[in-house]
Amino acid sequence: MQLNKDGTINKFDRGRAKVRNHILDSSYAVISETLISNVSMLSLAKAAKVSRQTLYKYFDSIDDIIFALKKRLDEELLDDIIPVFGQSGLNGCEKCLNSIQKFFDLSHADPKKFVFLSRFGTSPTAREVSSFYETLFAKTVGTEQVILQGQRDGSIRKDLDPQMAAFSLVNSTVAIALRLVVTKPQIDFADHSLSSRDVEASFIEQVRRWISA
Amino acid sequence: MQLNKDGTINKFDRGRAKVRNHILDSSYAVISETLISNVSMLSLAKAAKVSRQTLYKYFDSIDDIIFALKKRLDEELLDDIIPVFGQSGLNGCEKCLNSIQKFFDLSHADPKKFVFLSRFGTSPTAREVSSFYETLFAKTVGTEQVILQGQRDGSIRKDLDPQMAAFSLVNSTVAIALRLVVTKPQIDFADHSLSSRDVEASFIEQVRRWISA
Repeated sequence: MQLNKDGTINKFDRGRAKVRNHILDSSYAVISETLISNVSMLSLAKAAKVSRQTLYKYFDSIDDIIFALKKRLDEELLDDIIPVFGQSGLNGCEKCLNSIQKFFDLSHADPKKFVFLSRFGTSPTAREVSSFYETLFAKTVGTEQVILQGQRDGSIRKDLDPQMAAFSLVNSTVAIALRLVVTKPQIDFADHSLSSRDVEASFIEQVRRWISA
Repeated sequence: MQLNKDGTINKFDRGRAKVRNHILDSSYAVISETLISNVSMLSLAKAAKVSRQTLYKYFDSIDDIIFALKKRLDEELLDDIIPVFGQSGLNGCEKCLNSIQKFFDLSHADPKKFVFLSRFGTSPTAREVSSFYETLFAKTVGTEQVILQGQRDGSIRKDLDPQMAAFSLVNSTVAIALRLVVTKPQIDFADHSLSSRDVEASFIEQVRRWISA
């Protein structure tokens, strides 16, 4: 991307980013509702109302589009979580638990996003693997910061390894959220029934007992 | 299936079960190593060295075969876990934690099985959904039993709801195990690195703190 002298994005690139986003929007809608074996570059071009040639100027293949979509969804989720880390008036333990709760809430607010990530989380290419590790690292460092804050403010126990705890919480939370959205577990007993929300509440209670000072 | 008067399985059905299992074995090998869009009933018949006609006597479609394979894998895993619940000389808390550890160990011993379950866990048919709930119920009840044992022997706190805890543990453990096998998370720091085993160990430690009396 080229910048103007004053640091703004130039018109040409702004136009390109707009078209690219438009293609991603319409591809997301198509891919979310279609078996992947029925999706073709032609059908994605048609959905975006652009020519095949134009589509190929932006993306090499369907895999390329899925990769870009996953990246965008991941970034959106991270953008939704970061404000929780910055909330004022909360101690580190509260922020840590709130960020997990927030992630679960996002999965209920927009299950489609999580189903998409889960569908295409299983066969990453080499490029995706390196992107996956980068994102994982960013998430882990964010969580590590609130754990360190909690150890300083006395809300999180000091003998917890902040890196290990952060790495574990990020992986477990994502794993649980994705699986619950996809499988919608439920068991009905005579007098009550259990569902995803119970798994999430139990997990948060577990984490509370694990990290609390 | 017809039984003989003495309660044994008759020869014809034994033969049928043998062929069915043989088809499942070879289909498992093919499907595990091929993009599903490249798998056909013909290729599965060829791999099993049976005619297409014979294959169709046993299974209606590829989905039907995948469903049967998932069921078989699920049953194998359950068979591997049940002995942990019956181990003598252990209290309920130890059995509960051991069963989670065992599940993680199985995922390291046979990752292919878990990758398979994860690949085909995302778009279940109506029939699969009801089978999923049955299996989930069976797993939950098994775990509930060891939690109740732990509450009787004093190793698990009495204010824990055994059904809710069991339901939560089963769902979280499966979610974490499947995702770790598929994504192989790893972060390298200057002096140490973190991997799946650390997530598993942290999760078990969390559960210990959550359920212990």
